[in-house]
Amino acid sequence: METAYHPTPRTTPTRYRDRARYDRETVHRILDEALICHLGYVNAGSPVVLPTTHARLDETLYLHGSTGSAPMLAAKTGSLPVCVTATLVDGLVLARSALHHSLVYRSVVVVGEARTVEDPAEKLRALHCLLNHIATGRAADCRTPNARELAATAVLALDLVEVSAKVRTGGAVDEPEDCALPHWAGLLPLRLTAGAPIPADDLDPATPAPPYLTPYLR
Amino acid sequence: METAYHPTPRTTPTRYRDRARYDRETVHRILDEALICHLGYVNAGSPVVLPTTHARLDETLYLHGSTGSAPMLAAKTGSLPVCVTATLVDGLVLARSALHHSLVYRSVVVVGEARTVEDPAEKLRALHCLLNHIATGRAADCRTPNARELAATAVLALDLVEVSAKVRTGGAVDEPEDCALPHWAGLLPLRLTAGAPIPADDLDPATPAPPYLTPYLR
Repeated sequence: METAYHPTPRTTPTRYRDRARYDRETVHRILDEALICHLGYVNAGSPVVLPTTHARLDETLYLHGSTGSAPMLAAKTGSLPVCVTATLVDGLVLARSALHHSLVYRSVVVVGEARTVEDPAEKLRALHCLLNHIATGRAADCRTPNARELAATAVLALDLVEVSAKVRTGGAVDEPEDCALPHWAGLLPLRLTAGAPIPADDLDPATPAPPYLTPYLR
Repeated sequence: METAYHPTPRTTPTRYRDRARYDRETVHRILDEALICHLGYVNAGSPVVLPTTHARLDETLYLHGSTGSAPMLAAKTGSLPVCVTATLVDGLVLARSALHHSLVYRSVVVVGEARTVEDPAEKLRALHCLLNHIATGRAADCRTPNARELAATAVLALDLVEVSAKVRTGGAVDEPEDCALPHWAGLLPLRLTAGAPIPADDLDPATPAPPYLTPYLR
């Protein structure tokens, strides 16, 4: 397999082309780190964007849903044209001038035709990936779905073919004539952090929090 | 002004309707806290979802762009049908059974026709809001855009009319027969946190970090 995706007109940004990345390693890392994605599709001519959880298995992206949700119903009749975008915000860039402010971020855009996963074995595999995506190791540490639950859950699959990443790193870049201005300039790092796990009210207090939550790292 | 938005077919979820919220206060709070949003539009029949920064001013949502970016070019020819979604992930919900896993989240979906902001005074006001959105007080603590910079920047405006929020709170809810299983269940709180500000290489080291970054709270 080639190490990079092929750019297409739909995955070539019109702006900041130097920030575009097509190598699979960068794309996979962003998809794996992002806890959620935003799923876009067209409904009666109008754009719809919904947050959902996802998981990557090799070159397939799985999206979680329920059988009654709008995109799942739409995909039921065949494949659904989608755009799936996952974004990580790594920091704020504060420059002396208003219009050089920016964010440090990494994002991935996947376009293609999503299909409903019908095969029970693939669906179960996808659900395991979705569980391990939110907490590595969790799929093996919970009750596996029964046939009724599996039937009530829908999963979309999207092949990673038309894919691009966009990566903005580094700090503030000001015009030379602005550098003497008295405003602070620099970078404020941001990250998603976890607090202490809060046990359910009905959990035996002797049950220790699992190692994949202590600490929880993405 | 009424305290709530009117639900429409496009802002009525097909699933988990009890999680839908239409009161302005809830919607405003989510939009103001979310650092970025995802902008969806339709390009040649295909859905496109891009991350961008936003800011709310009363009942208008402003979206930042550059004049050369695809949605800004599309909106240039008139109004652009969009769906803007902002999502905050507040935690992981781990249940004993696989399919009761969930996220604690708050999201807002705004649908409507976005317009390009042409009036320079409105554009400047929107840019001030966008700066203060990323760090409260920053608009007054940087060099304001000049005419050339203003012309090179595009801002979209979207009226908050067709709007809904979705809020999922609380911890794990398991089936009674699963509660004796030996798996940990509960909530892992998540939040976006800031590290220490990193001054730019060319910043006078005597310049203190501004109060709106120390601490930085959303």
